[in-house]
Order: sequence, then C-alpha cells, then structure tokens
Amino acid sequence: MADKITTRAENYSERYNDIVKVADLAENSDVRWCMVIKPYGYAIRENIRDVLDKMFKNTGHVNAYFPLFIPKSFFSKEASHVEWFAKECAIVTHYRLKNSPDSKWVIVDPEAKLEEELIVRPTSETIIRNSYKNRIHSYRDLPLLINQWANVVRWEMRTRMFLRTTEFLRQEWHTAHATEKEADDEARKMLDVYDDFVTNFMAISSVLGIKPEHEKFAGAVQTYTFEPMMQDGKALQAGTSHHLGQNFAKAFDVKFTNEKNELEYVYATSRGVSTRLIWWLIMAHSDDKGLVLPPALAPLHVVVVPIYKTEEELKQIKEYIQTLIERFDTTKLDFKGKYFKASINLRWKIDEDTNRSPGWKFNEYEAKGVPIRITVGLRDLEAWMVEVFKRESGEKSSVKLEEVDLHIDNYLYKEQNNLLRKNQAFREANTFVVDTYEDFKEKVEKWFVLAHRDGTLETADKIKEETSATIRCIPFDQPDEAGKCILTGKPSKKRVLFARSY
Amino acid sequence: MADKITTRAENYSERYNDIVKVADLAENSDVRWCMVIKPYGYAIRENIRDVLDKMFKNTGHVNAYFPLFIPKSFFSKEASHVEWFAKECAIVTHYRLKNSPDSKWVIVDPEAKLEEELIVRPTSETIIRNSYKNRIHSYRDLPLLINQWANVVRWEMRTRMFLRTTEFLRQEWHTAHATEKEADDEARKMLDVYDDFVTNFMAISSVLGIKPEHEKFAGAVQTYTFEPMMQDGKALQAGTSHHLGQNFAKAFDVKFTNEKNELEYVYATSRGVSTRLIWWLIMAHSDDKGLVLPPALAPLHVVVVPIYKTEEELKQIKEYIQTLIERFDTTKLDFKGKYFKASINLRWKIDEDTNRSPGWKFNEYEAKGVPIRITVGLRDLEAWMVEVFKRESGEKSSVKLEEVDLHIDNYLYKEQNNLLRKNQAFREANTFVVDTYEDFKEKVEKWFVLAHRDGTLETADKIKEETSATIRCIPFDQPDEAGKCILTGKPSKKRVLFARSY
Repeated sequence: MADKITTRAENYSERYNDIVKVADLAENSDVRWCMVIKPYGYAIRENIRDVLDKMFKNTGHVNAYFPLFIPKSFFSKEASHVEWFAKECAIVTHYRLKNSPDSKWVIVDPEAKLEEELIVRPTSETIIRNSYKNRIHSYRDLPLLINQWANVVRWEMRTRMFLRTTEFLRQEWHTAHATEKEADDEARKMLDVYDDFVTNFMAISSVLGIKPEHEKFAGAVQTYTFEPMMQDGKALQAGTSHHLGQNFAKAFDVKFTNEKNELEYVYATSRGVSTRLIWWLIMAHSDDKGLVLPPALAPLHVVVVPIYKTEEELKQIKEYIQTLIERFDTTKLDFKGKYFKASINLRWKIDEDTNRSPGWKFNEYEAKGVPIRITVGLRDLEAWMVEVFKRESGEKSSVKLEEVDLHIDNYLYKEQNNLLRKNQAFREANTFVVDTYEDFKEKVEKWFVLAHRDGTLETADKIKEETSATIRCIPFDQPDEAGKCILTGKPSKKRVLFARSY
Repeated sequence: MADKITTRAENYSERYNDIVKVADLAENSDVRWCMVIKPYGYAIRENIRDVLDKMFKNTGHVNAYFPLFIPKSFFSKEASHVEWFAKECAIVTHYRLKNSPDSKWVIVDPEAKLEEELIVRPTSETIIRNSYKNRIHSYRDLPLLINQWANVVRWEMRTRMFLRTTEFLRQEWHTAHATEKEADDEARKMLDVYDDFVTNFMAISSVLGIKPEHEKFAGAVQTYTFEPMMQDGKALQAGTSHHLGQNFAKAFDVKFTNEKNELEYVYATSRGVSTRLIWWLIMAHSDDKGLVLPPALAPLHVVVVPIYKTEEELKQIKEYIQTLIERFDTTKLDFKGKYFKASINLRWKIDEDTNRSPGWKFNEYEAKGVPIRITVGLRDLEAWMVEVFKRESGEKSSVKLEEVDLHIDNYLYKEQNNLLRKNQAFREANTFVVDTYEDFKEKVEKWFVLAHRDGTLETADKIKEETSATIRCIPFDQPDEAGKCILTGKPSKKRVLFARSY
C-alpha cells in the first residue's frame, strides 16, 4: 500500500486491477491464465461459500465430490446430442515424468501415454449425470439434490482476475426429479435462493427473469436469471438456473420407474455460481479509496489502531484495548435474508505493527474495505472513549467505551442496508423505459433499457449488431402490456430488459 | 442396505470395503483410480475440515489458493536439488478438443499443443514456495503462515478408497520464518494441534515423536509424527510435520533481510493431512454392524423413526415428534480440545419414509454409525416417553420427553470419551516392551513394539527385511535409558517404536 487507484472517470477497467492490487485480493501466478487468490481475497470467498452452503443445506441439498478428470468419450457422448460445450480445455495425455538422460531436468515419459485421454473438468455435468444412472432406479430415489464445491478449468485466453481465469472455483448443482413441474419449481426456487444471497448478503439488487429462447443455456427448457448492474451501467451474467427437462437424461440414459410403474427419463436442473461473484462484489460497491464490502461478507468488521508516541504510552493503550475487545468477543451479528439468517461473530483485528505508521495503516484498511476503524490514543484513555471512523461515509465520532459494541452493531446493520439501497437506487435511476429505436440506442449505450421487441432471433441479432446490447431477460416484474417492437414495429406483449454486458 | 459385513476375523481388508459400501461413504467412479465421495462420506469430510480449519485459524494461520497446474520446469528445479518427488503424475499436454472429421466424436486437436507441459499438482510445495519469492523481502514480512485446502493428483496404481486414490482432497501448509528456532517451534506446535484434533475429535490416541534420520521427509531437518494403531495392530502414516530448515529456500532462492540487515534464506516448515483421515476413522472405531463415529464428527447425532400401523397412528406420532424436536433445536454440544472448542448444533433427522420398514432403517443407521436412534410408537405417546437406542453399546432405554435433550447431551459426551478410552486402551494393551530379537519378531508381527536399536540404517534395513517392521518414531514420552540393540547388541540410549504399517 498504497498505490494510487485509477478513478472511475479515467479508466474503469484499470481501476478494477488497481483495487485487486491495493486490497491484496489476488495476483497473477507463474502459470499463465491462472491466478493466486491471496489470503484476504480467499477470506471473502470463504464467507461467500459458507453462507451459500448453509442456504443450500437449508433447502434440502447435499454436497458430494466427483472426480477432477473426465474420460474423453464422455464428451463425445454429449457432443452427439448437444453441440454446446466449449472445446477449450486442459487435456491429460500422460501419467509419468522421468529424468532426462543427463539427469538435469525432467521430461514426459513417452511410454506413459494414457489409452484414453482425460479432460480436466470444465463442468462436472457429464460425470455427475453418468453416476446418476447407477443411483436412480425408482421414483423413491428422487429427487436427488446434489451440489459440488470444486475447481474447474476452461482454457480461457483473455483472462481477468476473478471474472475469467483458466482455473476457477465454483459450486455446481445437478438435480434429478420425477416430474417436470418439480424440476421447474426447483430451478425457479433456487433462483430465489441465489437472489436472496445476492440481495441480502452481497447488497446487490438484480432484475430477475427468464432468458429469451435464443439466450437460453443449450439444452435447457427454461433458463432463469438474475441481472445486476455494474457501476459502469453494464450487466453481468452472474448466475443462472436451468430447468433441463429430459434432454440430459436422454443423453446419459438415466431412467426411473415412476409411480405408475412405467419407465421414464428423469427431469433435471442445473446451476452454479463461481469466484466471479467476487469480481462482481468489487465492481458493485468500490469507491476511489478502494474496496467497499458489505459487513455480512467482510473478512474484518473492525480494525483497531493504537496511536502513541512512546513505548510507555503504547503499553497503557494496549491494556485499554484489551478492555475494548472484551466487548467484541461477545458481539454477534445477525444478517437476515428470506431463506437464511447468518449469525456471525464480530470479526476484528488489532494492528500493533510498530513498523508501519498510523497513516499507512489507515490507507491500507480503507483500501481493503474494512467497514470500521477504531483509533485509541492517550486522550481516549482519559475520557474512557474511543474514536470510531466509518470507512464508507468517512464520518468520525467519539464513542463511550461501554457503548462501542452496540454502536458498531447498529452501524453494521445500517451499512449493510445502506449499500443495498444505494445499489438499488443506482440501478433504478439508470434503467430507462424507451419506445423509439433512437432513444433506445442512446440509452443502451450506457444503461439498462426496458423496451418492446417482436420476439424473433433476427431482431435480437440486428439490435445486438447495431448496439452491442442483448436481451438480458424477460423480467418477472414487467406487466403485460401491448406495445410495438422498437426495431420492426411488430406487436409485443411485454417489455424486456436490454443491456450491454461483460 | 443391508449387505453383510465381513468380520474382522474373516478378512480385515474386505471388511473395510464392506463398511464403505453399507455406510454409503464412497464408490468407484467411471474414471479409473478416482472415487466419488458420496453425500454421507462428504459430510464427514466437511466436519473434519471445519474443525481443523478453525484450529488453524486460531493459531494464526490463513488460507489462500494457488493454481492447480505447475509448469514442468518447476519440477526440474526441484529435481536438481532433491531427488525425492514421485514422478507418477497427471500431465497436461494439450488445450483443445475438436470434432472428428465425421463429427461423431471428439479428438484432441494436435495443433493445440502446449509449449511447456503442465503438471496437475501432486503437492503445491513448488508453486507456493516460488510465489513466496515475490512476497518476502524483510523480516517484517515473516512469518508467513499459509494453508491451502485443495485437490491434488498422484498417479497411484494400487488404489483404495480414502486411503490411496489418484485424486484426493487435502490441506497443505507451507510456512516461512525468520529463524531456525521459530520454524522448529512451528513444526512441533502444529503436530500438537493435529494431535489435539485426532485425540479429542477423532477419538484416536497416538504415539507422538520424531522420525529417525532415514525415515524423515527428504530435505527435512526434522520430521515430527503421530502414530496411531489400527484395529489390526498396524501403524499408519497419517500426518507428519516437517521442519525444513533452509533447504527449500535455497532451491527456490527465497531470501530476506534479517534484523541485522543481512541477506539470509528463510526457514520453512510444511505439513498436511488428507481424506486419508476418513480411512483412519473407519479403521479405528468400526464394528461388525458397520461404522462407529465419534459424536464430534458424526454427520447425524440422532435419527428419529416413527413406529406405526395405520395412517392415523402416524399422524399422531408425527405431531408428538414435533414436540420432541423442539427440544433438539436449542441443543448445543461443546466438544473441547487443548487448542480449540467446537460448539456444534445437535444434528438430527426424522426418517418418515413410508417405503422402508423400521427394521430396514435400524440396520441402515447402525451401518452409518448414527450414535442415537429414537423410536416413537403409540405407547410412548401415552407415557410421554421415547425409546432411546445407543448404537455403540446396543443399550435401549425409555426416556421422559422432557429429559431427552439432556439425556442425549450427556450420552454424546460420554460416548466421545468412551471411544477415545477404548482406542487408547487397545493401543496400550497391544504395545510391548521387548528386549530380545526373538520376542521382537513374535510381537511385531501383530502389534506395536518398544525396543532398543543401535541407530544405524543398516540395522533398521535388516529388521525391516526380516520382519516388515519399520521404526515409526522416537517417542517423546520414552525416558532416556541405557540398553542394547535387539539385533546387534550395540548400545542404545532410548527405546523406539517399531510396527508394520499401511
């Protein structure tokens, strides 16, 4: 710390890289296209995972673990049914190294060639579905609600930390059901669970809806999505929930005996979110001093910095700080969503490092988005007070020692809601209802637009070609209303959401 | 459920496979040498990870994440310094698939060949140490206490579920320190943390000590180890903690400026435990009915099974069960170790499945090692009682509804300690102090032996050749005493622990 952060106005993309650097979240690794998630970045990932994991378990889902490698033949099987999957992936062809003839380096042993190549999982869809075949016999074995937390690999050439890297961490869900309705209900309900997390824990407000026919996941009957707005007005594909009907069961031959004693293909759903959520968290709330984090997910809520001149002063202040943190140890924070309540211990740290100045530390923790900084100097001891600084508003206040836990507690709830309100207000203020193609073109260059379209692929393609904007979703909350397509003038029954996206 | 479990007497190894199957922990996958960890097995893994992770964090360690792939050249670097690492690993040579000419299957695109092959990490040692170079400049940057939870791959041909599979899940620790003493203290202290977990959470008692010179991890200054006894009297390498001195820092050129302003290589430690702990947990406590789990790590503490004849009876019983589980919802269990206290919610399940008979369910949950089964029938309703069955002892008792939570609470603590005591008594009763080679050969064929040896590699090799036993450790708790080597009669100062091992 603390390098300067490029402002939003200067270069939004550079700014992102600067924040990742100053907040010490991640760095490029020695392996091209892969990143190292540093401890502070990983702590955010753990908080996200822990909250989501409990939400999933609360809704009856269980975790399991499937192999990292997938035989190449599984992809052929899938390829013959659906032509969707990307072919850029890491391929294992050999299983042994050996010393070079002069023993100075290692080489791949040409004799250790695999009979069938193995693919490092780009998704576990094929291997999980295949295993379902052995597990599902009767309607009594359903539903099967399995989730996996794991690393996956897609050979991405244009990478960006957290947004798109060759290896990334994700959860993926592959469920099996006895009826079409049950599968559709699951896909729809789990979108709400994602949205609950995103809204109430990440403090980000999204537009929920259905993907239009041509933007659906290949092979899906229905793709449900939530669409947030980034600070630069763009959308991001952050999480989708698919009802797959019987398509995948047919590809993998997964049948069961239904209640009428007939053999039938199972109904499936799938979805997943990844470390991309961290990219999104950074893009949603940061300011020009660095990261801003919603308290529900912040690795640290409070940092305490002693301010002193002499060793003797430091000694006194340290004792005082001990009294302070006794109050922290019993402080529990409850963050609530629709589906889940998280009870979190107050996360705090005392920074007594004598090698860094208070000013250096202030910058450091502001860049890292720690919501509250407490400083303690000699004067505070005498007054039985501490100074509380709020990262996001920049507001400072003197607080009585015996009130400090309550003060922090109150502030963190307020701040959690405050961030959500700001995010929602920003999206709402920058979402425009337009009725002409001229207005459309002007607004969609920068913001979200609600407009009528005729529902054809041709129109969608033409609009995308001319404006770079795509239909993000058919929002649940848009009323039925008669209108005319902004491009062709043909009739439309409902406005859809357009935006450019990452 | 419920296939028959092979008894210990019949075949100990078959018995292991049977337990994994009936307890539904894991299964072989469609990928040779890799396993699927099924939901119940994965829940045990999650409990192990969560407790260990909190213990690590309590001792100041942080998590981070490093890439799955390691450039081949990193292995050459290491190979030139230490000749230790196994060369059986998964090697990525290509990064793209393409359709076959007839589009019926996929093939590896020969044009997508990597310039430098990537190795799927068999351990992250090299990539983590290499990244330390950029991170460590001064003594102020030390210590660096980084842990990683991840999957690793070693091309094992003789696999066994949880014990040895090509891919496995583990945590690995790679720390860096400013002084030799600090590194040694860390290695020693973290052995105690492991032992705390193993003793107080896994309910397994081990012999702690130092590995003899020839059994040390290659490149280590000192290897600390804990050695448990399996039910068949064998030892298992379950966890070791290495003080690496400056050896690895020299290989990876990681230097820092010390307090005297001199440039020096950092001191390092490393260690890790894996899903092998689950193998061990199974081998330590199981009986001929299946798995026995220590309550601190059991995915379920209590299963409730209604016993009824008519739908009307079931309805009444279900209402009664609701009253029962209200008592569970507020029950918290505290399991304590030396370094960590785990506060766990009571984990329970009601099995109302009408497709399975009570008898089938009883077998199922006994095989899965659920410590307590509660049955509720009509008679229990009238008496305001429930019937409590204890898995491990087979004891049944009628308990008043208003006392059931306290009853369970008390039992689970007792059971946790009971399992540990049994395990410890078994090891102690089967550890023999011997002074002649004849006695040694007889005892070591089946059990642990404490004996004198002259400390030469030659003697250790000879003993191993003739008895298959190795020196497991030089135990901390053995007193200094003059003795004679059981093989050569040469002088010895301390008894060491011999055993055969997995």
